[in-house]
Amino acid sequence: MGRPAARNVKGFRDLFSGDLLLKQRMIDTVRTVYERYGFVPLETPAVEFVDVLGKFLPEQQTPEGGIFAFRNPDASPAAPPDDPDLWLSLRYDLTAPLARVVAQYSQLQRPFRRYQIGSVWRYEKPGPGRYREFIQFDFDSVGVPSVAADAEACMVMCDVLEALGFARGEYAVKVNDRKIMQGILEACRLGETNINDEKSKAAAVLRAIDKLDRVGLPGVRELLGAGRKDASGDVTAGAGLAPAQIALIEAYLVARGATRAETCTRLTALVGETPAGKAGIEELSEIDRLLTSQGYADDRVSFDPSVIRGLSYYTGPVFEGLITREVLDEQGRPTQFGTVFGGGRYDGLVERFTGQQVPATGASIGVDRLLAAMSLLKADERRAATAQVLVTVMDRARMPEYLGAARRLREAGINTEVFMGEGRIGNQLKYADKLDIPLAIVAGGLEFERSVFQVKDLRLGRALSGSIAAHDEWKKSQPAQREVAAKDLVSEVRRMLAGPAGA
Amino acid sequence: MGRPAARNVKGFRDLFSGDLLLKQRMIDTVRTVYERYGFVPLETPAVEFVDVLGKFLPEQQTPEGGIFAFRNPDASPAAPPDDPDLWLSLRYDLTAPLARVVAQYSQLQRPFRRYQIGSVWRYEKPGPGRYREFIQFDFDSVGVPSVAADAEACMVMCDVLEALGFARGEYAVKVNDRKIMQGILEACRLGETNINDEKSKAAAVLRAIDKLDRVGLPGVRELLGAGRKDASGDVTAGAGLAPAQIALIEAYLVARGATRAETCTRLTALVGETPAGKAGIEELSEIDRLLTSQGYADDRVSFDPSVIRGLSYYTGPVFEGLITREVLDEQGRPTQFGTVFGGGRYDGLVERFTGQQVPATGASIGVDRLLAAMSLLKADERRAATAQVLVTVMDRARMPEYLGAARRLREAGINTEVFMGEGRIGNQLKYADKLDIPLAIVAGGLEFERSVFQVKDLRLGRALSGSIAAHDEWKKSQPAQREVAAKDLVSEVRRMLAGPAGA
Repeated sequence: MGRPAARNVKGFRDLFSGDLLLKQRMIDTVRTVYERYGFVPLETPAVEFVDVLGKFLPEQQTPEGGIFAFRNPDASPAAPPDDPDLWLSLRYDLTAPLARVVAQYSQLQRPFRRYQIGSVWRYEKPGPGRYREFIQFDFDSVGVPSVAADAEACMVMCDVLEALGFARGEYAVKVNDRKIMQGILEACRLGETNINDEKSKAAAVLRAIDKLDRVGLPGVRELLGAGRKDASGDVTAGAGLAPAQIALIEAYLVARGATRAETCTRLTALVGETPAGKAGIEELSEIDRLLTSQGYADDRVSFDPSVIRGLSYYTGPVFEGLITREVLDEQGRPTQFGTVFGGGRYDGLVERFTGQQVPATGASIGVDRLLAAMSLLKADERRAATAQVLVTVMDRARMPEYLGAARRLREAGINTEVFMGEGRIGNQLKYADKLDIPLAIVAGGLEFERSVFQVKDLRLGRALSGSIAAHDEWKKSQPAQREVAAKDLVSEVRRMLAGPAGA
Repeated sequence: MGRPAARNVKGFRDLFSGDLLLKQRMIDTVRTVYERYGFVPLETPAVEFVDVLGKFLPEQQTPEGGIFAFRNPDASPAAPPDDPDLWLSLRYDLTAPLARVVAQYSQLQRPFRRYQIGSVWRYEKPGPGRYREFIQFDFDSVGVPSVAADAEACMVMCDVLEALGFARGEYAVKVNDRKIMQGILEACRLGETNINDEKSKAAAVLRAIDKLDRVGLPGVRELLGAGRKDASGDVTAGAGLAPAQIALIEAYLVARGATRAETCTRLTALVGETPAGKAGIEELSEIDRLLTSQGYADDRVSFDPSVIRGLSYYTGPVFEGLITREVLDEQGRPTQFGTVFGGGRYDGLVERFTGQQVPATGASIGVDRLLAAMSLLKADERRAATAQVLVTVMDRARMPEYLGAARRLREAGINTEVFMGEGRIGNQLKYADKLDIPLAIVAGGLEFERSVFQVKDLRLGRALSGSIAAHDEWKKSQPAQREVAAKDLVSEVRRMLAGPAGA
C-alpha cells in the first residue's frame, strides 16, 4: 500500500483550538442553563442497532440510506437477512436513543428530564458548513402531559440564548402547534389524508408551507396549486389544491399578529371550528398565559403559523429558536444564521418499542451551527492559546529554573507553558506570537545572576498594529518589556495580564 | 419485523446522572491541569480511513479484526480491494488521528501541544468493566526532542491525580525507558532480534516481563525458560533463554532501588556497557534531575524497570500513572485500580505518513477506568440530581406562581425544577426523594393567601435513617419543614441548603 495519505473522510473535519475554546465555553453555558432547570445528564453509545434507530427498511431488508450502517461483526455469517441484530449504525440523533432508554429501563423516575450532548452522524451529501458528523445538545422532559413543560422549553431556549450573549431582539423563539396545522388541513377538507404519507396532499401542503422562507408567499401559492418552476428551470409538482383551499392556507400563513393573543384570535377564526384546531389553540393560549406570567413577552416568544419542523414525529406544540441578529461573514457580507434550536412535543416517543404513549417534549441546539455564528459574533473573544505566559528557554542547562518559574505561576492559577521545542529566543517569541500567548518570560545568565526575569508583553504589537500614535501612547504607560524581581514574578505577571491590552 | 426490542449492542452501555455528574467534574479537573501547562484542544472525527489508523492488512486486503470497520459508502461498488479509500473505521485511539493531523497540516506551529478527549472504539470481547466504547483524554507534545518534555509529562500526571483528590502516597507514577529495555536485550545478546516481530525471542522476553504482576518472579523465570503451565493447565511456551540470560533479566527486574538515583546506579551496572542502555540511563538521569528540581520526589515518581507499556510504538521514556490507594468495591472487597495513565515517547509518530521522524511524547488517561475508581472513592460525593430544589405543584391553576418561585431561585443561581408530571404531592415528594433533590417547596391555596411557602428538607430522612437520637437532635436544630415568607424565599432556601445536612 505504500505510505497512507494524511486525509479526512469526506464530510468530516478537524477542529482546532480557536474554535474549540469558544465551543467549550458555549457548551458549559448551555449545560449551566439546562441544569438550572434541573435536567440531568444521560450518555448513550454512538453505536445502536439499526432497528432501534427506526432506520430499517423491512421491505428491502437493509438499513436506510441516510445513516452510517454496518454489519454487526458479532452476527453469524449465516444470520438471516431479517435478523434484527444483523445491522448496527452510528446514531442519527439523540432522540431515538432517548426513546430506547425510556423503553429499556422501567425503573426510571417519571418525569425523566435529561440532557444529552453528543455527536450524531448522517450519511448525506456534505457541503459548505454541512458535515456528516455534528454535535447536538438536547434537553427533554419525558412523562409530562401538561403544556407547562412546553412553555418551560420555550423559557429554557430564551435563557440559553441570553446566557450565550444574545440580547432581547437578537434572537426569537417561534411556536406553532401541530394540532393547528391539522386543523387547517381539516378546514381545507384534507383532514383525512395522512401527513406521514409523502404522496398525500396533506404532506404536499406542509412541504409547500415549509418553503415559505425560500420562495415567499407567491411561491407557496404555486406549490399549493399547479406547481412551480424555479430560476434554474427545475419544476416542483404542485399539491393541486382548489383556489378556495389555497386562499384558506394563505390566510393561515399570514395569521401571525402583533401579539400571541392576537395570533390566537386570528387562528380561532380560521380553524377554531375544527376539533384539532380548537385543541391546538387551547394549548397555545395556555402557553401564552404561562409565558406572560413569567415575563416572556412577544419580543422573545411569538406564535408563528408558518413553523413546520418536519413532517411527522411531533404531536403538539413545535418550536424553534433563531438568531435574528445580523452577522457579517468573513467576507463582510450580512448573513442570517437562522435556526439553532428546534423541538416540540412528541407523545409517541416510545410507542414504537412498547405500544404505549408517553408524553414528552424538548428541544435540541445545534452546537456546530451555533459555533459558526459565535465565531463571527465573538471574533474578538477568540483565543487559540490556553497559556497566558510562555517561559522561553535560553540556556538548556538552566531548565530547572525555567520549570520553577512556570511552576510558581501555575500554582497561582496562571496557565504557563515552558518552551519544549528547539530554536533560538527569536523563534520562541515568534511561536508565542503565532499562538497568541500574551506574555513571554526571558532569562539568561545575567538575569539568573541578578535574580530577575524579563517579562515581554506580546499583545502590544498585535493590539496596536497600524496605529503608531496609540502604540507610542500605550508604550509610555505600559512598556513592552519589564524587568521583574524573581520574588515578584507572580504578582507582576498578574498585574501585566490585567493590563489594558488584556482587557 | 414487529416492534424492536429496546436493547444495547453488546459491549456498549448507557451512563446515568450519578456517574455522569462525577465524570463531568473529573473531566473539568483534568482539562484545567492540561491547560495549566498550556496544552490546547484538538478535535478529530470519530470516523477515519482504515489505512490512516494503520489497521489495514495488505496481505489480506481487509481491515484488522480489532476495529469497527465498514465499507466506505462513498466508494464505488467496482472499487478494487486495494483502494485505500475503500474502508472506514471508528477510531481506535486518539494517537493515530494526532499523527494524521500533524502530517496533514504543515502550517501547525511546533511544538504542537494538544489535548484531546473523545470516545474510542475497539472490537474486542467485552467483559466486566471492559467496554467497546470508552473515553480517552490525551495530552501530547509534538516536536520536542528534549526529555524535559517527558519529565513535564510526569509532572502533569502527578498534578492531575492530585487535583482529582489523590494525596501523596495514594498514587504513583512509574517510569522506564525503552532504550534500557533494548540495553538488557543487548546484554543478553538478543539485541539483533526485532521486538516488533511477535515470534522473536526479544518479543517473548518483553511479554514475559509484562506478566510480572500476574505471575510473579518465579512465573517470569518459567516464561523466560522452558515455559509455564498455569493453574488451569494452560501452557504458555517459553522464550527458551539460557540460565545466564534469565539471571540477567531477573537482576534487571529487581533493579528498582529506594530512589531514582539508586535505580540508575543499579541499571548502569547491568546495561551501562551497551550503547542503548547507556543512552537510556542518561535520559532517566536527566528526568530525575528535572523532577527533583521541581520537588517531585521518589514518593511520587519512581523508576521501575518492569514497566513495559506494550511491545512496539514507544522509542524512549515510557510511563504510567497508578492509583495505589486501596478501594473497597461494592461488595466491600479490597480492590486495586491500577493504571489509569499510560504514555511515553514515540518519535516515529508521523513517520508512517511522511517518512520523517518527529519527536513526540505524551500520555492518556482512561476516563472510564478512573470513573470506576472515583465512583467508589467518592461515593459520598455522588449526586444524581442537578436540582437543589423541587417546586411541587398542588394546584395546576396556580402554575404561574410555582413557575415564578422557581424563576426567582434560578435567577439567584439555585438549580430548581418545577414538577411537570402528574401525581399528588406525596408522589411528587417521593420523586424528589428518589432523585436526591435536597429541598422541596409546597404551596396551596392557604399558603398563597398568606404569601408564604412551606420548604421541606428532604435530606433529613436520608441522612439520619436509622439513628433516632441523631434524628431527634437534628430535628430540634433544623426542622424538616419551615414556613417561609414569599419575599424571603431565596435567602431562606440558600440558608437551608448551606445547613448541616447539606455539608
